[in-house]
Formats: sequence, structure tokens, C-alpha cells
Amino acid sequence: MRYHPAIAAPSEFELIARHFRRPARDPGVVLGVGDDCTLLAPSPGQQLAVSVDTSVAEVHFPAAAPPAAIGHRALAVSLSDLAAMGAKPRWCLMSLTLAEADDAWLADFAAGFHALCESAEISLVGGDVTRGQLAIGVTVQGEVPPGEALRRSGARPGDLLAVTGTLGGAHGGLEAWQAGERDLAHPLLRAYLLPQPRLAVGLALRGLASAAIDLSDGLLADLGHLLEASGVGATLEPEALPLADGLVEALGIQGARDAALSGGDDYELLLAIPPERLAEARRRLAELALPLTVIGGCEAAPGLRGVALDGKGGWQHFPGGRK
Amino acid sequence: MRYHPAIAAPSEFELIARHFRRPARDPGVVLGVGDDCTLLAPSPGQQLAVSVDTSVAEVHFPAAAPPAAIGHRALAVSLSDLAAMGAKPRWCLMSLTLAEADDAWLADFAAGFHALCESAEISLVGGDVTRGQLAIGVTVQGEVPPGEALRRSGARPGDLLAVTGTLGGAHGGLEAWQAGERDLAHPLLRAYLLPQPRLAVGLALRGLASAAIDLSDGLLADLGHLLEASGVGATLEPEALPLADGLVEALGIQGARDAALSGGDDYELLLAIPPERLAEARRRLAELALPLTVIGGCEAAPGLRGVALDGKGGWQHFPGGRK
Repeated sequence: MRYHPAIAAPSEFELIARHFRRPARDPGVVLGVGDDCTLLAPSPGQQLAVSVDTSVAEVHFPAAAPPAAIGHRALAVSLSDLAAMGAKPRWCLMSLTLAEADDAWLADFAAGFHALCESAEISLVGGDVTRGQLAIGVTVQGEVPPGEALRRSGARPGDLLAVTGTLGGAHGGLEAWQAGERDLAHPLLRAYLLPQPRLAVGLALRGLASAAIDLSDGLLADLGHLLEASGVGATLEPEALPLADGLVEALGIQGARDAALSGGDDYELLLAIPPERLAEARRRLAELALPLTVIGGCEAAPGLRGVALDGKGGWQHFPGGRK
Repeated sequence: MRYHPAIAAPSEFELIARHFRRPARDPGVVLGVGDDCTLLAPSPGQQLAVSVDTSVAEVHFPAAAPPAAIGHRALAVSLSDLAAMGAKPRWCLMSLTLAEADDAWLADFAAGFHALCESAEISLVGGDVTRGQLAIGVTVQGEVPPGEALRRSGARPGDLLAVTGTLGGAHGGLEAWQAGERDLAHPLLRAYLLPQPRLAVGLALRGLASAAIDLSDGLLADLGHLLEASGVGATLEPEALPLADGLVEALGIQGARDAALSGGDDYELLLAIPPERLAEARRRLAELALPLTVIGGCEAAPGLRGVALDGKGGWQHFPGGRK
């Protein structure tokens, strides 16, 4: 881990080191934090899946959110990209930009980050800390056998479209936050601030799903990416969308469907699956106690049918865009 | 490359894609930008050296600097970490945070970034763009054969301490910038805004140098890191410091030595080299047209001798710290 002198007076060095340095138990970490680079030993014969996502305060999350949730969420959104590729998490690096070094805040933030590292079996192997507007960039590296990665481009006409878990919860949680809700036991707020990357799903559906993408920008936007990459069209069944618990009560049925279609930040997986493989996919996900809901199907004809779009390109449903 | 909807209206998608997408000519890139992750094929038997550095406007560089220089510099500071490990650059990812999407600025920024990618033979394989205070995080990945990485911890008593190139230029350039100098042909300003990562040096000195670190925080600070990691002390010869061209004229001899000792941002390499290997090291660097200057030597006794320190721990030479 590198510390720039612009923020790191000696006491801050120690402060930051105390929060982020953990002993590396991963035999793939040849040389851990403390040199110019970390040295890693990739597994022979595996491909490396890499991605980076930056979470900026007041753009991607409320600056006043619980610090443990901010730490969890910053890692979760990057892990979700590994999940969507069917990659096994190995190593991550964190770029932390802080307006100030607050010991209690950092302790909670690091606890949230490290807890997800442990459950996802990924090692934090490097990073840097700089002074500025609160933002967290997380680079993740995972491994996948050659030819087994789930891509966006593999969907074929006839494939079913299915999603894991439920949709719209994160948007409902954002609205709850804006209305003053602060209890992380609130299921919608929980969906927004503590998303669960579907790593086990990606691994379980290697070789079964023909295409996958994670739902970060909203179902309509991400489905659009998948259809474009695959060169197919689709029909959606809006009535089939699995809505988050409590969403209809909070937003009404139309608002709940809008949230599920366009709300974003749910970090579930959208999958294309040949019909003859659906039963096996459901069997594997049942072991994870996670529903897999068919919401439509792919067709040769380009374009999207089954939902009324807004006429402005379709992917910006909420007026003025989301925060 | 991922684009968050908070910044990416369709026109911005296209804008950003136009500036950063280049065809991948690297056979190690199995699947390039455009999916949830990039897929890479690490070279068999190599270790992976990884590092991340974030450059924040007005903390690490002037926001009004030429955008091509900002792009160059953001990548250079990360590449310098690969240089210090003796690693061969392979792949990088960029997290770009922008207050606004300005087409001309982005074109120049991308040109500076890509030009250094080409000369350093590294491929930009992913990234994200978010809205916020201007900052650039760059994750670099390089390769090095097992056991050949240059570490901070290998210096032994009797080793010579040597630096590449000249020192103090970046601090002189910062002062020149603050005094209104804007011409990138000015050698000190050039040293500050367009540092050259010493990648060829790191590769050339694999197997010769016993330890290495890049000079980002200033010679005294970085030497301190190297000595601490190696468990040795040292004597410096301040008169031997290779001062940047024009530095004495700009700052006087004492100011020039202060800049060389504590100024930071020079991104030269500090090396520990057994005396019997010095001639060979110089021969290899002569092919790179780069001087290698002995500035002291390592000793068993802990601590640093030969320079008058400031009594406050020694590593904060400029009152109030550097910007």
C-alpha cells in the first residue's frame, strides 16, 4: 500500500496501516503490501478477469451512509462484475480518497470492506490513500478457466431471459433513504446499501448460461447491453418481474415495476439460458437458496418488445436520471 | 469499460468511448473493453506485479496543467512502481473522475495517456468514468519471473546507493509552475509534469541490484522506506547528489539540495548495488543514455548519516509539507 505524503503524516500512516493491513493467508500472494508493487502468483492455466469501479460520495452512495455499508458496497459493485463473468475472486486493490482521516469512520469502513473480502474469499493486496472528495475505487481480479467465462455476447434466439433474486429493491431503498429511513434492517434500504454480489451464481452457471450481465444500471439498460452484444432482440414480460419485498407497498404496483425495470443498483444477474438447461440451472441455484425467475426470451428480431418505452431511447426512465 | 448512468447520457457514452477505446493488439487480451470484465491471459510461469496510484487535481497536479500532461503523469506514477520492481508492463485500468465531460480536454488527456501506453508497451484494458472532483486512478499490472523482482528489502551492508537521472527537478518545476511558468519546454516544469518512469532501468538491473524503490515521496523519505525494509543504515553524500539542470540557478545550491533530498515526484529509481556489480550496472544503463550516480552506501548500523535532518523525524523537510 502506498501513502502519498500529501495526506500521510506519520500518524496517518500508522492509522491507515492499522485499518487495512491484514496478514495475507492467500498462498497466491508472493509479496504483500509494503513494497512498490504486490507480487501475485496467478493459477496456471487460468485466465484473469479484471474490472474497476469507482464509488463517489453523493453520486453513488450517500456520504452519510454507515461507513461499514460504504465499505461493503464499494467492494460489492466490483465483485458483481466478477460474478457476471463466472470468475472466482482472488485479489483486489483499493484507491481511497478521503476528505479527512477520521479514525472511527475508517475502522467501520474497513470492517465492512474486510467482512465482504472474507465472505467473497478475495484478498486486499494493495491500494493507496489520497486526500480529496470521498471516493473509493476498487480493482478486482478473479480467475476463470479458458473458454468458461460468461460473456454478454452469447445469447441466442430461443434462450430464456432470467434474473436472480428480486428487483427494484435498491431504488426503493434510495427513496427510503431520501425520505429519512436510516435503519439498515429495513429490507429496501438494505438492498440499496448492502447489495450482495451473486458470485456463487456466476460460478454455478458456468457452462449452463449462454450470456450474463450484472444489473447495475437497471434492467432495461443492462438488457440493452446484453442484446446489443449478442445481436438479438427480446420480449419482456413485465408482470413476471420478481419485485423486492415491500416494494409494492412503498411505491405502488406501477412504481414498483418502474423501479424493477429502470432503477439500477440491484446487482442481481441477468442471464440468457437455453430452455433445456433451465431445470438444471434452477436446481443449482436452489442450493444457494436463491430464486431464478424467467422474465422473457430472446428472439432473432432486433429490439425489445413487451414494455412501453419512453420514446427517448428507452434507457432513461426516471425523469432527469437517477442520482 | 463501464460507464455509470450518473454521468453517461448516450452522447457521453459515445464521447468517452471515442477517446479511450483502441483496438487491442496485445494477444494477452482475450476479451477487451465492453463486457463486465476484461479477460487476460497471464504469461505461464510469470508472477504478476500490481499497483494502484490515484492522482487528485490540486493535490498531486495542477488542475490547469495541460491535459496531455495530466494523462501522461497519471499513468507514469503507476508505471514507476512497476519500474521499481523490475516488472515488464502488461495491462492497466483507469478510473477517471470528471467534474464535466469536455471533448477537447478529453481528447488531449487521452492522447497523453495513450502515448505513454505505447512507449511503455502497456495496454489499457478497462476502466470506469464517474462524475466528481477531477481524479485519475491507474491500476497497473506487470510481469516478472519468479525470484527476479527488485524488492525494497534486499539491501545489505556494503551495498552502494545509487540513483538514476537527476533529482530535484520536479520540485523545481512545481515552484516554476507556481511562479507562472507554463512552457513545457522548460526543463524543470517538464520534469514535474512529464516524469519518465524508468522501466528500462528496472528490467536492465534485474539480477544486479539488491534493492530498489522509486522516488515519489522524496529521496529521504523513500530511502527511509528502503533502509527500514532492508534492516540496514546508510551514509549519504549530499555533495554527490545529481542535481537537475537549471536547479541551482533557480533555487541556489542549498535550495537545490533540499529539493533533491526532500522534493519528491522525481520518479527516478534509488538502487542498492553491491560494489562489484557497479561497473556492469553502469554499462547496462549507458545503453539507455542514463547516468547512474553513487550517492552513498549501506551500513549495518541503523540510521542515516551524512545529512543534517530537521529533528522532527527527518522526513518532512519543507515547512508545512508539500502540496
